[in-house]
Amino acid sequence: MKPVDYPEPFQQLARQLRRLPSIGPRSAERIALWLTSSPDAHVENLVEALTVAAREIRPCGRCGFFAMGSECAICADPARAGREICVVETATDILPIERTGFFSGRYHALGGRLAPLDNVGPEDLRIDALVARLEDEKPTEVILALSADVEGEATANYLADILAPTGVPVSRIAQGLPAGGGLEHADQLTLQRALAGRTTLRGKGI
Amino acid sequence: MKPVDYPEPFQQLARQLRRLPSIGPRSAERIALWLTSSPDAHVENLVEALTVAAREIRPCGRCGFFAMGSECAICADPARAGREICVVETATDILPIERTGFFSGRYHALGGRLAPLDNVGPEDLRIDALVARLEDEKPTEVILALSADVEGEATANYLADILAPTGVPVSRIAQGLPAGGGLEHADQLTLQRALAGRTTLRGKGI
Repeated sequence: MKPVDYPEPFQQLARQLRRLPSIGPRSAERIALWLTSSPDAHVENLVEALTVAAREIRPCGRCGFFAMGSECAICADPARAGREICVVETATDILPIERTGFFSGRYHALGGRLAPLDNVGPEDLRIDALVARLEDEKPTEVILALSADVEGEATANYLADILAPTGVPVSRIAQGLPAGGGLEHADQLTLQRALAGRTTLRGKGI
Repeated sequence: MKPVDYPEPFQQLARQLRRLPSIGPRSAERIALWLTSSPDAHVENLVEALTVAAREIRPCGRCGFFAMGSECAICADPARAGREICVVETATDILPIERTGFFSGRYHALGGRLAPLDNVGPEDLRIDALVARLEDEKPTEVILALSADVEGEATANYLADILAPTGVPVSRIAQGLPAGGGLEHADQLTLQRALAGRTTLRGKGI
């Protein structure tokens, strides 16, 4: 008896689905089964969406966010020009900040952060482009919204040094207790940073 | 300030990905981000696999398993002809049985099971095709491998009645303790069925 498996095009589809993030072998098989056997699958709609997205979406030449032309919707908004520039690690960090509704300047995605162990140095990040933007756009402030870990810290310090000659004020987003977080769940480093970053409520300050 | 979101082709892609089984809104966005920004995404390979699978794979005309021509690899194997027919609910139940290596006959996917509450009656299942196959292929036995729940039970009883006139022996796969399952974890119904289905180890039988 020959061992039987799914037909080769099915297995090829499952292999392609497995490459997607957060899809394991069992999910890949389940999705492939659904796509090839459900009357509601409408594979052509998915194919169309993939093709259009791959063709139309490219990084914004200025900030790195997802754009359809040469400039993204954020950079194209004249009301955002000449204000703060918020520096993030990757383009996917932009929308979470945008959704807070608390920031109305432009962004700059570095394309990563300094990570000597992974051979990521300053020349691999869009730092020269950031310096050029500062000279060109003259923002009121550069806000570093980088990760609160060792590599984020190193990248922030490096940028602060590099950007100092431009004269543009450089700040970094706060570290402290997360919203809803109790003291008993906070680790030592978080508490230390929450203490160091304390803000005055009454009186003239610390 | 205009609220900014991802470009429309991106959102359309995320909507299409959300339709897939076991993909929620956050996974859909994460996958769409990866597909539109990772240099390893190779969207064209996924598109090709989807297109080929949707074009080439169809249900086997005989058993309902996934096939590339009119007949699947299982039905096309002459060594499997004239043996047992294993009746399952859906085509996706076939490979798990096949992978046990314990069955060397053919299969028959009903396309569901009797479910009066969901308006699924005998006319919605491939029962006529099964009766026709029994007359045509003259299998040695029909093995019902249906779910061990009320609807699987009802479907099995209905099929046993319908198939009786053909004279082909009809059996049903065993119900009992799952492999590795201890008595303390078994529910009452499982234990009841395990007792009723006990097999003789020594002596002439019960």
